Amino acid sequence: MPSTKPNKKKIFNDPVYGFVSIPDELHFDIIEHPYFQRLRRIKQLGLTHLVYPGALHTRFQHSLGAMHLMQYAIGVLKAKGQVISAEEAQAASLAILLHDLGHAPYSHTLEKAIAHHISHEELSILFMRRLNKYFNGRLEMANAIFNGSYPKKFLHQLVSSQLDMDRIDYLKRDSFFSGVSDGTISDERLISMLDVADDRLVVEAKGIYSVEKFIIARRLMYWQVYLHKTVLAAEFMLMNVLKRARQLTQSGVELFASPALAFFLKHDLNTAELENHDSALDYFAALDDFDIFFALKMWTNHSDKTLAYLSKSIVNRQLFKVELSNQVFEQEYVDNLKSKITADFHDFNQATEYLFIQESTSNNAYNPGHSSINILFKNGETMDISQASDQLNISMLAKPVVKNFICYPKPEN
Amino acid sequence: MPSTKPNKKKIFNDPVYGFVSIPDELHFDIIEHPYFQRLRRIKQLGLTHLVYPGALHTRFQHSLGAMHLMQYAIGVLKAKGQVISAEEAQAASLAILLHDLGHAPYSHTLEKAIAHHISHEELSILFMRRLNKYFNGRLEMANAIFNGSYPKKFLHQLVSSQLDMDRIDYLKRDSFFSGVSDGTISDERLISMLDVADDRLVVEAKGIYSVEKFIIARRLMYWQVYLHKTVLAAEFMLMNVLKRARQLTQSGVELFASPALAFFLKHDLNTAELENHDSALDYFAALDDFDIFFALKMWTNHSDKTLAYLSKSIVNRQLFKVELSNQVFEQEYVDNLKSKITADFHDFNQATEYLFIQESTSNNAYNPGHSSINILFKNGETMDISQASDQLNISMLAKPVVKNFICYPKPEN
Amino acid sequence: MPSTKPNKKKIFNDPVYGFVSIPDELHFDIIEHPYFQRLRRIKQLGLTHLVYPGALHTRFQHSLGAMHLMQYAIGVLKAKGQVISAEEAQAASLAILLHDLGHAPYSHTLEKAIAHHISHEELSILFMRRLNKYFNGRLEMANAIFNGSYPKKFLHQLVSSQLDMDRIDYLKRDSFFSGVSDGTISDERLISMLDVADDRLVVEAKGIYSVEKFIIARRLMYWQVYLHKTVLAAEFMLMNVLKRARQLTQSGVELFASPALAFFLKHDLNTAELENHDSALDYFAALDDFDIFFALKMWTNHSDKTLAYLSKSIVNRQLFKVELSNQVFEQEYVDNLKSKITADFHDFNQATEYLFIQESTSNNAYNPGHSSINILFKNGETMDISQASDQLNISMLAKPVVKNFICYPKPEN
Amino acid sequence: MPSTKPNKKKIFNDPVYGFVSIPDELHFDIIEHPYFQRLRRIKQLGLTHLVYPGALHTRFQHSLGAMHLMQYAIGVLKAKGQVISAEEAQAASLAILLHDLGHAPYSHTLEKAIAHHISHEELSILFMRRLNKYFNGRLEMANAIFNGSYPKKFLHQLVSSQLDMDRIDYLKRDSFFSGVSDGTISDERLISMLDVADDRLVVEAKGIYSVEKFIIARRLMYWQVYLHKTVLAAEFMLMNVLKRARQLTQSGVELFASPALAFFLKHDLNTAELENHDSALDYFAALDDFDIFFALKMWTNHSDKTLAYLSKSIVNRQLFKVELSNQVFEQEYVDNLKSKITADFHDFNQATEYLFIQESTSNNAYNPGHSSINILFKNGETMDISQASDQLNISMLAKPVVKNFICYPKPEN
Repeated sequence: MPSTKPNKKKIFNDPVYGFVSIPDELHFDIIEHPYFQRLRRIKQLGLTHLVYPGALHTRFQHSLGAMHLMQYAIGVLKAKGQVISAEEAQAASLAILLHDLGHAPYSHTLEKAIAHHISHEELSILFMRRLNKYFNGRLEMANAIFNGSYPKKFLHQLVSSQLDMDRIDYLKRDSFFSGVSDGTISDERLISMLDVADDRLVVEAKGIYSVEKFIIARRLMYWQVYLHKTVLAAEFMLMNVLKRARQLTQSGVELFASPALAFFLKHDLNTAELENHDSALDYFAALDDFDIFFALKMWTNHSDKTLAYLSKSIVNRQLFKVELSNQVFEQEYVDNLKSKITADFHDFNQATEYLFIQESTSNNAYNPGHSSINILFKNGETMDISQASDQLNISMLAKPVVKNFICYPKPEN
Repeated sequence: MPSTKPNKKKIFNDPVYGFVSIPDELHFDIIEHPYFQRLRRIKQLGLTHLVYPGALHTRFQHSLGAMHLMQYAIGVLKAKGQVISAEEAQAASLAILLHDLGHAPYSHTLEKAIAHHISHEELSILFMRRLNKYFNGRLEMANAIFNGSYPKKFLHQLVSSQLDMDRIDYLKRDSFFSGVSDGTISDERLISMLDVADDRLVVEAKGIYSVEKFIIARRLMYWQVYLHKTVLAAEFMLMNVLKRARQLTQSGVELFASPALAFFLKHDLNTAELENHDSALDYFAALDDFDIFFALKMWTNHSDKTLAYLSKSIVNRQLFKVELSNQVFEQEYVDNLKSKITADFHDFNQATEYLFIQESTSNNAYNPGHSSINILFKNGETMDISQASDQLNISMLAKPVVKNFICYPKPEN
Repeated sequence: MPSTKPNKKKIFNDPVYGFVSIPDELHFDIIEHPYFQRLRRIKQLGLTHLVYPGALHTRFQHSLGAMHLMQYAIGVLKAKGQVISAEEAQAASLAILLHDLGHAPYSHTLEKAIAHHISHEELSILFMRRLNKYFNGRLEMANAIFNGSYPKKFLHQLVSSQLDMDRIDYLKRDSFFSGVSDGTISDERLISMLDVADDRLVVEAKGIYSVEKFIIARRLMYWQVYLHKTVLAAEFMLMNVLKRARQLTQSGVELFASPALAFFLKHDLNTAELENHDSALDYFAALDDFDIFFALKMWTNHSDKTLAYLSKSIVNRQLFKVELSNQVFEQEYVDNLKSKITADFHDFNQATEYLFIQESTSNNAYNPGHSSINILFKNGETMDISQASDQLNISMLAKPVVKNFICYPKPEN
Repeated sequence: MPSTKPNKKKIFNDPVYGFVSIPDELHFDIIEHPYFQRLRRIKQLGLTHLVYPGALHTRFQHSLGAMHLMQYAIGVLKAKGQVISAEEAQAASLAILLHDLGHAPYSHTLEKAIAHHISHEELSILFMRRLNKYFNGRLEMANAIFNGSYPKKFLHQLVSSQLDMDRIDYLKRDSFFSGVSDGTISDERLISMLDVADDRLVVEAKGIYSVEKFIIARRLMYWQVYLHKTVLAAEFMLMNVLKRARQLTQSGVELFASPALAFFLKHDLNTAELENHDSALDYFAALDDFDIFFALKMWTNHSDKTLAYLSKSIVNRQLFKVELSNQVFEQEYVDNLKSKITADFHDFNQATEYLFIQESTSNNAYNPGHSSINILFKNGETMDISQASDQLNISMLAKPVVKNFICYPKPEN
């Protein structure tokens, strides 16, 4: 059990907000826990720094930032007369602090390549349960808020909805560290406009333009950063190198891996198995960016040509060429490319399976539905932003944009 | 004639961009001219500072800022292989430097209340002609670029179009000084994406999200700042106090006014008259924020109750109540309000004419048409942004939004 | 008496801090009062904008900013266990809100030229007394904190000392708006390090470097902005034009002046007279930047050549040449310059008295003494920063630097 | 040999400066080289992020930033009439781009623990020679500027002196990412004041306050960040864990290490050996943060208790307690602490050698001497800043401040 030491009031320096204060000892002790410290070693944006060199910030920073915003949001809502007890305020803050505990390193990639039956939210819940035990049940309410079972629904929405503290922090932070200043949003203004109506989070009518701006900024970040074609190339290359490593491992080829990585290369668990397999969660808790990237460095010299080639390409940033299109690529074009790859890499085993990627990605800037953003008018009525906006065609923003892409070694590489 | 002194390389400190350098002596001498110095005394946003106290920046700062952006834009275009001679670069820079010379103080208001037959662009042209004579014809090309007669049309578009240096600077600057950080835009990114195709300014395809963001930011600034209802109230009150002053003047009542203001209260000139009436332009050149606001201060003690009441209300910031609506206000509601005003201000002459305002305002975020924003694709094709944007319904943004409002003394005042 | 209206929670947008919240109704009502609204029309830095065009911010903005910092400081001290009642917190906040009420327009200049027997602090006290009556004694404690008679001395130090909220805000704000980014300080960090020991404000030991940086930044702002030689030139020219106006007025020459300005050109009151002369304070309350600068504009056409020449020079920014020296200027050099002025302006009356300025200015970056900055060590001891700093020779910074300067029309003007 | 591809004009997004442009193809090809890409995997500030979580920026970002400043500086000097050929400008830019090539991961620590006979400057020179060969001698002039043999000495000073682009970028960048905003400096202002006199870099007299501020900011960053006591603790723990690993390796105990790390744990080379030992430099080029930190992760389970304990403490951020003092610690106090450690860790081998650290650190904010900062006065004279500053006692800043510290496991851990 964590000891009760005096003077645990800690302040973090944060380039985004200036100062982030830790509100109480329980927060402090959780931050000190190895589960939380691990987030220091998981970059928020995986390989994005290969395109935006500043994007090295971690889920540790993001979690603290989201907690900081939660303190502010709770204060705003209380000042508007919403009843939120001290215990609820603490629990909401803890819920957001812990919301990313279940993230794998290079998560979007690894969720697919390794832990592909399990979402990071499910994993976060598993870790929060463990921590709850460790902290003698003091995280009960936080867990309830996180998983949506707590009666006051708006507290859950502060943690997870289309205008939650998670999104506000990550948009602001990703924009800040990537240097894509166009994606920035005014966290303070947005949060100051929040209110609660019928137990649901709403935005005051005068905040409608800020919400529009938020949606547009999110859309911009998607196309400019999260789905930037070179970032996608790097991520798919990483996915394929891990797929190859897994295939080699499972067919008995030796390759370097940390114990944690080795476990996941060998096994293929779903959430239930993971939950019941005690050491599996321990392995997960030991996995971070260092396991993955260091393995790549080791694999650059492996005798398997595919593994070595892909690893070297990522480490030295010789990334694949990407073609993007609104249409599906013509089969003939694709076949030609594949033939060329087969020829160029004739001494590779199954070259096109690992060196040619054909995928599609989609994004909709706004998702109307159960976690929609509602606008509160002065007469007390609420309305979905897609109705309330007098001009911005948010219903159009809600339509997913699908982009097809193919990805393969640059001719000269 | 301006002397030729050594060391006229001057750098201005600008909170927005850091440093703004004056590129050459001709720029320097123009900045020193009283016509340009007058812009130091004309706030960019008139009475907006009554709502956003930081919005005290002047057309002087804005003109220098737009000139700064022009230097950057010219550099970007030349680096992309566009042919722009040193003389053209200088002329484009001078054209944007001088583009606001014809602004009246509290211009949106005064253009209506005083100089209502004349646009500030027409006046800018008159002043630029005078300066051209003074500088022995050295502003010839700048004037041609400004009025659109210069062959390379894209140079004019840098000065005046939907994505010109004027707009980029004023959005950025107005957002900065008002503190409405949501309205900010990334000038550097936008400009770095500019190019020229078929003698027209275009934006590279990868800049499409930044353009969307620019349009949305502009829209946000319109509703949040430029057409903020309290700002509108202040502006209409100012318009009415000047209307009253003009009426009193023309019916022979004595009231304080600077010589320049007195001239415009008395006369009602159109552009042609102004041009031919030499001293009229001199009077205009003498008119600045001090003439207007100081007159208000003097009028607070005038015996005409309407004049005094409106002046006092502005000076002490006891602004009218504003009601805004998408619909036209019901006649009965309006009549009731007017009756109440007539009763409350029974000792005023024509109370409702000056104390009740009923207007509508409209804004469209984007104007397709001859100065539309075109996107340049990699295959060399260009397309209007409203077609090119795959999701944002810009055609919808192009539809003007009309808002009706009424404005009258607060009950308790 | 101010009415009690609902919903007076107001938030100002501030480019420096983002949002500034008005904590309660009393603050709100005071801000609405014409005495406070007048501060909107008094620029913080007088004519400095002639050198730094962004420096147009007002004492209104500064007063709100300092109030904002006070809220933060009170919160920090309470979190460290200092006992501050809600009433004391409000009073300290009101005291700083009102601390600049007694400032004249272009204050450094006008204090010398017009109200030269009265300090702005004395005038602030007079206004605060009046407001206290108007608000039925609710400003009693605020006044006591302001004038230093309240028992808890550290509250007064928050309002007025070498590390008070006034200085922290003005340094930060002046640096921000002038664009002299080197002068910026970290308000949040500095304030977060404050504590109280023996009823005196102290800085925690780990804040020592931030205090040093604060002192250096202040010094930099002095020499780079407040005592910038062109700013000094403009200020002395303004002082002389007002001296001339006063002399003309008192010798019966007619010249334009607003009633308030006319009063001060005619009379020469000390604090006691001002206090007892009821309308004098009213005149003062009517005086703002518009009275002064508008008068200059009118005087540009006055028949008195000195008055007209100086006025025109300021309005069109044709400022005097300034020479600065650590030594006193040689008499012969000065005499030669004066002779030249007498010759060049032979048709002026007493040319050198108004067109030649010889002054000295001094500044010390740090003032040890009763309001010194004390450092609190972990063992509970406190020490003056000039002793505590292990390396920075703050005692040296305490030695005033004296600079001599002369100022006269540029040869070519 | 690098191919000559079209369109290598690349722009990096940088949160610090906005955009950083790659000036030409040679720069581009060097940046693509694995030697330079390796800098992506070396954090600028080692373990500092354990205290300032944002401080994750890399030497890659810093090198690009310094190159960006160099472009600006060259432009400033040329605008002031200094003759700098296009070739020299390119070479100076390349020299600064490559100046950090020889840095080891966690460099301050590793220079001591592993490569302790070799400075990173010497290593940079070795790598630059190799690159020069690879690029067919095109880096000849860059190398000469870097090592100081190029005739125009001021070019070397831009790369390495007390006011070089290296320092200006790292101060600005470290302040930015650590969030210690007090340490920021105005790069643009400082550089705009540079000039050359007698082939030496000088600062114009009006820049004296900015230089003072720069020195003070650097001092602040030293005590607040670089020598922050918890950072020091982490660094010394890392140093000791590597010392232990080296001792175990050399006495034949097996422990995990990447090939590169293993090489340096086994060998103990000086510069000459490194230069002649071809694969040694290859090993060095393969060493980055991942090798070190991943090894720590693996060692947490090693059977050697010291190795495991120290590794675990760093990975989970359970850092030693640090005591700092201006005086040398009393022997008795130290002996008591050591006895306690010996008792607490009785089953460790040589506990105090690895778990007790006693060191001293020193820093002087300014170093007068051959690379001193000279101020250029208008009369053409130059003077060392320590003489030129009228008040700041820079000679005092030049005196090194020595701090003693001891560092050992916290009682409760």
